[in-house]
Amino acid sequence: MTKKTKSNLIWGGRFSSAPDQLMKSINCSVDFDKRLYKQDISASIVHARMLVETEIISPIAGSEIESGLNTILKEIEDGKFVFKQELEDIHMNIEGRLYDLIGSNAGLLHTARSRNDQVATDFKMWTRDAIDEIISVLKQTLISLYKLADTNQKTIMPGFTHLQIAQPITFAHHILAYMEMFSRDLRRYTNARSGLNECPLGAAALAGTSFPIDRTKTASELGFDRPMSNSIDAVSDRDFCLEFLSASSICAMHMSRLTEEIVIWTSAQFNFVKLSDGFTTGSSIMPQKRNPDAAELVRGKSGRVYGSLMGLLTVIKGLPLAYSKDLQEDKEAVFDTFDTMIICLRAINGMISDIQTNKEAMEAATSQSFSTATDLADWLVRDLGKPFREAHKITGNLVKLAEEKNCELNELDLKTFKKVEPGITASVYSVLGVKQSIGSRNSLGGTSFAQVKNELRRWKEILF
Amino acid sequence: MTKKTKSNLIWGGRFSSAPDQLMKSINCSVDFDKRLYKQDISASIVHARMLVETEIISPIAGSEIESGLNTILKEIEDGKFVFKQELEDIHMNIEGRLYDLIGSNAGLLHTARSRNDQVATDFKMWTRDAIDEIISVLKQTLISLYKLADTNQKTIMPGFTHLQIAQPITFAHHILAYMEMFSRDLRRYTNARSGLNECPLGAAALAGTSFPIDRTKTASELGFDRPMSNSIDAVSDRDFCLEFLSASSICAMHMSRLTEEIVIWTSAQFNFVKLSDGFTTGSSIMPQKRNPDAAELVRGKSGRVYGSLMGLLTVIKGLPLAYSKDLQEDKEAVFDTFDTMIICLRAINGMISDIQTNKEAMEAATSQSFSTATDLADWLVRDLGKPFREAHKITGNLVKLAEEKNCELNELDLKTFKKVEPGITASVYSVLGVKQSIGSRNSLGGTSFAQVKNELRRWKEILF
Amino acid sequence: MTKKTKSNLIWGGRFSSAPDQLMKSINCSVDFDKRLYKQDISASIVHARMLVETEIISPIAGSEIESGLNTILKEIEDGKFVFKQELEDIHMNIEGRLYDLIGSNAGLLHTARSRNDQVATDFKMWTRDAIDEIISVLKQTLISLYKLADTNQKTIMPGFTHLQIAQPITFAHHILAYMEMFSRDLRRYTNARSGLNECPLGAAALAGTSFPIDRTKTASELGFDRPMSNSIDAVSDRDFCLEFLSASSICAMHMSRLTEEIVIWTSAQFNFVKLSDGFTTGSSIMPQKRNPDAAELVRGKSGRVYGSLMGLLTVIKGLPLAYSKDLQEDKEAVFDTFDTMIICLRAINGMISDIQTNKEAMEAATSQSFSTATDLADWLVRDLGKPFREAHKITGNLVKLAEEKNCELNELDLKTFKKVEPGITASVYSVLGVKQSIGSRNSLGGTSFAQVKNELRRWKEILF
Amino acid sequence: MTKKTKSNLIWGGRFSSAPDQLMKSINCSVDFDKRLYKQDISASIVHARMLVETEIISPIAGSEIESGLNTILKEIEDGKFVFKQELEDIHMNIEGRLYDLIGSNAGLLHTARSRNDQVATDFKMWTRDAIDEIISVLKQTLISLYKLADTNQKTIMPGFTHLQIAQPITFAHHILAYMEMFSRDLRRYTNARSGLNECPLGAAALAGTSFPIDRTKTASELGFDRPMSNSIDAVSDRDFCLEFLSASSICAMHMSRLTEEIVIWTSAQFNFVKLSDGFTTGSSIMPQKRNPDAAELVRGKSGRVYGSLMGLLTVIKGLPLAYSKDLQEDKEAVFDTFDTMIICLRAINGMISDIQTNKEAMEAATSQSFSTATDLADWLVRDLGKPFREAHKITGNLVKLAEEKNCELNELDLKTFKKVEPGITASVYSVLGVKQSIGSRNSLGGTSFAQVKNELRRWKEILF
Repeated sequence: MTKKTKSNLIWGGRFSSAPDQLMKSINCSVDFDKRLYKQDISASIVHARMLVETEIISPIAGSEIESGLNTILKEIEDGKFVFKQELEDIHMNIEGRLYDLIGSNAGLLHTARSRNDQVATDFKMWTRDAIDEIISVLKQTLISLYKLADTNQKTIMPGFTHLQIAQPITFAHHILAYMEMFSRDLRRYTNARSGLNECPLGAAALAGTSFPIDRTKTASELGFDRPMSNSIDAVSDRDFCLEFLSASSICAMHMSRLTEEIVIWTSAQFNFVKLSDGFTTGSSIMPQKRNPDAAELVRGKSGRVYGSLMGLLTVIKGLPLAYSKDLQEDKEAVFDTFDTMIICLRAINGMISDIQTNKEAMEAATSQSFSTATDLADWLVRDLGKPFREAHKITGNLVKLAEEKNCELNELDLKTFKKVEPGITASVYSVLGVKQSIGSRNSLGGTSFAQVKNELRRWKEILF
Repeated sequence: MTKKTKSNLIWGGRFSSAPDQLMKSINCSVDFDKRLYKQDISASIVHARMLVETEIISPIAGSEIESGLNTILKEIEDGKFVFKQELEDIHMNIEGRLYDLIGSNAGLLHTARSRNDQVATDFKMWTRDAIDEIISVLKQTLISLYKLADTNQKTIMPGFTHLQIAQPITFAHHILAYMEMFSRDLRRYTNARSGLNECPLGAAALAGTSFPIDRTKTASELGFDRPMSNSIDAVSDRDFCLEFLSASSICAMHMSRLTEEIVIWTSAQFNFVKLSDGFTTGSSIMPQKRNPDAAELVRGKSGRVYGSLMGLLTVIKGLPLAYSKDLQEDKEAVFDTFDTMIICLRAINGMISDIQTNKEAMEAATSQSFSTATDLADWLVRDLGKPFREAHKITGNLVKLAEEKNCELNELDLKTFKKVEPGITASVYSVLGVKQSIGSRNSLGGTSFAQVKNELRRWKEILF
Repeated sequence: MTKKTKSNLIWGGRFSSAPDQLMKSINCSVDFDKRLYKQDISASIVHARMLVETEIISPIAGSEIESGLNTILKEIEDGKFVFKQELEDIHMNIEGRLYDLIGSNAGLLHTARSRNDQVATDFKMWTRDAIDEIISVLKQTLISLYKLADTNQKTIMPGFTHLQIAQPITFAHHILAYMEMFSRDLRRYTNARSGLNECPLGAAALAGTSFPIDRTKTASELGFDRPMSNSIDAVSDRDFCLEFLSASSICAMHMSRLTEEIVIWTSAQFNFVKLSDGFTTGSSIMPQKRNPDAAELVRGKSGRVYGSLMGLLTVIKGLPLAYSKDLQEDKEAVFDTFDTMIICLRAINGMISDIQTNKEAMEAATSQSFSTATDLADWLVRDLGKPFREAHKITGNLVKLAEEKNCELNELDLKTFKKVEPGITASVYSVLGVKQSIGSRNSLGGTSFAQVKNELRRWKEILF
Repeated sequence: MTKKTKSNLIWGGRFSSAPDQLMKSINCSVDFDKRLYKQDISASIVHARMLVETEIISPIAGSEIESGLNTILKEIEDGKFVFKQELEDIHMNIEGRLYDLIGSNAGLLHTARSRNDQVATDFKMWTRDAIDEIISVLKQTLISLYKLADTNQKTIMPGFTHLQIAQPITFAHHILAYMEMFSRDLRRYTNARSGLNECPLGAAALAGTSFPIDRTKTASELGFDRPMSNSIDAVSDRDFCLEFLSASSICAMHMSRLTEEIVIWTSAQFNFVKLSDGFTTGSSIMPQKRNPDAAELVRGKSGRVYGSLMGLLTVIKGLPLAYSKDLQEDKEAVFDTFDTMIICLRAINGMISDIQTNKEAMEAATSQSFSTATDLADWLVRDLGKPFREAHKITGNLVKLAEEKNCELNELDLKTFKKVEPGITASVYSVLGVKQSIGSRNSLGGTSFAQVKNELRRWKEILF
């Protein structure tokens, strides 16, 4: 059998000449779609069994096929399988090998299916597994964050808006914010997973098949909730990829925020946290450097994930039904995003697990920059009955005075307070301390120690 | 009161000079965020009532505030409200007007909240309403598509892959594929809606508040499922925008596929459908033209929606907690996407509602290009027991012969069939007709009249 | 004349019913494309004059048209022109008004042209003007940066990599880096401008015209270098928009880097610079805040520009020739990007013009974190003849020792130095000072005062 | 030497523990950046020679280094080089091997440079080569298109707007439009190439170096126009990647338009062209299919290129100076885009080189759909002196009549013409033929045979 015949094995019957060499390269996908081998073999085994049960093929043929496929599975997992680029993709590689192993009965396997539904089925199964794995790593990330928050319930830090010191908060409270974000990611991945769990197998090329197949059975055996309802949609739909990429983009964005903060926090100027040696690197020229490379890489890789989403959205834009070859661009985008999400989430896990908080530096920073000015304004409202807007103005004037005197608000003497607002009494000092400020912010979900403790209790129940 | 004092009304206490004119322009958002006026007023009324109930402000002040806000609502809806750019945003415009109306008690309204949680609350409410409206238009779209499919149950058309004629299908079956897509969009919007329905109000600037507010109450009065759990997250989170934009991008992609098909179908070469005059336009230079402008605009506007998603993903990438002003870029992206989705879905509704199918042209096209070749291959498998791959090769050779003779498969004489495969009998002709082909594809979700009827029945129950 | 006839004025001859109301809304572009009015009128005047000169229309008609167009120009600039949505776009609005003013000779103006080439011509002229304006503001930005660098030639700051202190540099040197970036932007805009300067007018709908027009003349009168060479390309090409958006995206990225630095530098922790009151805002709840809103907005608006680029790339992807209505999406993307670039560049100008550097804080920061460690390593190479890699290791060990002792390198005593590397002599101290370090980095383009002075001299010649 | 020490070889002096395994994976780039090996070795040789000439290292050391590097080059090109992941990147792999080969003098090579400027230099050289290769393939593409146009000077086809038949054109004229697009791509790549040709080497980590290096010399020896002017910019700048990706995105968009047309043209309905067997594939289930897979893949791969552009724009957004590790994401985006552009341009070359035009089908299509209606309108202007807008209306009415009679315009009898416009005479028929229409569009760049011939002559001079 010559190379040319080989390459035409599956669809070449009517063609008078072989594909151009260039065509082979652009068309060939086995280098990346071989990642689907496990799903492809599972789906083929289930398909073959169904063909036997519906008496479309004989039990003997069915069992030959199944045993051949199991051999192939082992060959691939043992690294002994020879992938051939001239067979284009993983599906043809497996089927080609099945011919070698069991002869012409191999040809029965493709009864009542097409590569179009086969690819869609394999890829949905793969994406489902990918989501499961990401969900599992996301849960570990939540646990790492929980532990970090738990051990930092009393660690005081400045809360920032606009990277300006705003109000005192606890580090635990800040970390809990990320737990909220990642738990929304969990929800999105879970939704994506349940949304994709309909089986395309049996849609054949696009119109269904004339063989009396049992789609409900194959769907169920492969762990799908049900078969897809429309055979044209079944082979054209890549929503599941886009929903996966969207969920991943949002999650990557969350990671980019956290790692941006880690980069800022590890600067000499902030010095809020220290990464372990395991997650920093040095410089080839500056011997003193301790670079937060992992954090930066995670931050940067958000671009890669966004790019895959935009790329695939572009690919599918304006594609007529049903399958077009453009859709072959789906896999690398999804594979690369999966790999990126896993390594980034694990890197975050790693960094978070042995990050050290510099409590003194954080607390010192909190006592600067008039971080309790809002407490003063609130006191003016509560104790002096000022409308908030007026209280805000009074406080602004006091901050200006303190700034001129180069001191903090609690370092102003009462006389100065009274000069600006005669009603102020000594009891104002009780709200100007950092800890008092935190303690007072006891509204639901606020930064007070009590609220944070409540939240940690709630999370504990969820996570353990 | 001078202009300068005005512009510093809310936050200027400590500033010694007014903002630069340019700063005012770049900072001003009232031109677009005035769309939030209704949500802002509702949320303020609920907030004020809660402040009364928790005895933070007096019932008299509360009732003045509420009545002032209702006046403002009426002014805005009557077009009598004067929006002032120097007051920056809708929130300050409303509060500024409240001062005019009720005097200094207006200042009490901002007790125990910040613009940060106020904006997030308003914008979530707006987005929730936007999703509800899109869902409603999506349902109408499904109904229009259903009707088109229902009246075209027997309309035969060629099913395409790679824009090459593949197999006979029905137009109803093709349209049903789009119903699947739009119903997945419905699911995604529904998920997005339920995911965003947690209330940020009471998070204040970022840390919560020291006033004894009742967040559960305000959340519930505003129709939220619950308050958000973490006050820092509450003011920093824009996942709800991104999830809305992601769902919209996928939906816009579906619309781009349908409109691409409409553009192709209305070409002189295809001539499968005719749009009504209401949805075509002429040319300023070519008097004979009937251009599918609406379809093209819908197709093109997918780019706009993708762009907004990409834009906002970029904005939030790498932003440290909590609120940063970059987030002000969220609104135009969401507003524009909402407007785009509504007008595009309505345009599709309009086009679909009075599209005419050219049944003769479609059926004629189906009888070309060997569209029943797969039926022949399947017959060889079923009746002659050939493995599929061999049947495929035999059929390929027969297609080649027919191509040379410039005829269709069912126009080949039996002798020719037998020359290629001696086992073929006259009964082969029974599978080579277009209608037989369609009828035979009776697998679940397939294109057979029976399957399509089933699907229409299922949809009818869902939609009516 | 009824409204319906009006709306069909231009292309409706053959249509039996008027467009759907919805169609009108989706199709109507006058709300945004009226920004082209000036270019449209100029191009029409030049077109009309050419029609006269080539004797296609009479001099009398030509002069009526020209005078009518001048009237319209004045009406628009005086705010007296009534834009009508039912006339779809700016071109039809102007032509419609021309009919009102001069009667049926108005119809002669559209001889030998189509809306397709008309729009392309107007929009290219507009984009050319837009680029000129951006180039002018970019030059002002370079001047502002130059002045800031010039007055900070001796301002010492830590150079960062990975936001970790790396080596001492001067603030001037840092600012000069941004001048390089913006000058590359200038080059890209200049290239884009010269690349777009070919005139589409005369391409008519797509095939050219049978009238004996003089395209070279109109091109030249409108300031183009030459007519476009291919009439199909002339009406289909939107490269000039994409090249404009690409150049703008890269420039927006540069602005996002500078503003990110401003945000970091104005944090209490860094405290390297202070923005003027004119470019900061306060908080509605936290009276002490001084937020770098303008910097954040500029940083965030990079997303908007990227989004427009992505959007338009998507729109044009896969569009068959020649004009399709999808292309109408080009204008808002370009208009919005122009507005964004101008306001962002001006905001940067404003911030840079009155930013104050906190020289003490910067210099103090430079003396920390072993910023001269590389100088030590280089000394080991130069004076002791160590290979760089070994010198790097020795320095690493010394840094570790200093870290343990909680001191800087120049605070280690000679004994300690010798313990790690016996060859070290007292002359090592001469390279451990911050100023010595800067002075020594005298390679071309390096941070030494002399190199920076050279660069400033070079820039001065370019800018003034 | 243990593995741990190895992995710390370059920057580990001060670290007390080795990087986490995960850190190693996320940080390791040798799997992709080994593509820079040739540039890295060239640049190192030039750097070493300069170090000798400036007497920074000895001639003996220099010659050992050079010979070692040449050995490594040969090892890599012979496939004998062992790439080690623990050495992170190609630069450390080469340097590590240099130690093996020549011992400690290897350490001298890194004198006066850092990985930051080294990477930037290597990558710019690589990108320069990549652009050269793309330019060369683009030129071949222009030649293939030229040949196709040249042999189809008289091939008549319908010109489309909105995919509706608009006016008769020639196939040559249509193909010439793509030549314009690709020649603009050539311009953009050429601009990008000349814009990037400044050498970063010698910038060291960011501040320059204290060694008396000669940057002008190394820049010139490496083929750069000059050294970069600012050392901080030199290590932070990735404009050259973005400009490459922008130019590529626009070029990919052009390819997507051409391939969309090929897909449409090869449909049974259009049947305008036929691709060779070398560039079509069959179906695994439908034996009659001849799918334009290569065209679809090229069309789809525009998404991939856009995605890389968006990804890298995101990565660099908001990065503070100077080098941050996020920038490591630059390489895969550029490498993948280069590979994609080359394979897509070659695929287009291949398809275009042996595409067959179906002249009969194209000409037949041109005679339909009133394609000469504009000619009729123009005749009314020219011969009857009607204003164009009135002529347009008359023609519209005539088209409507012909439509009702189900005939073309030249099949209407004179009486019918006169009924609509009494002034029409028999000479009107002279403009209603397809060839007359084409011949008449003789304006510069129009579709007339003469104009197209002119253009082909112009292109011939450019290309050969």
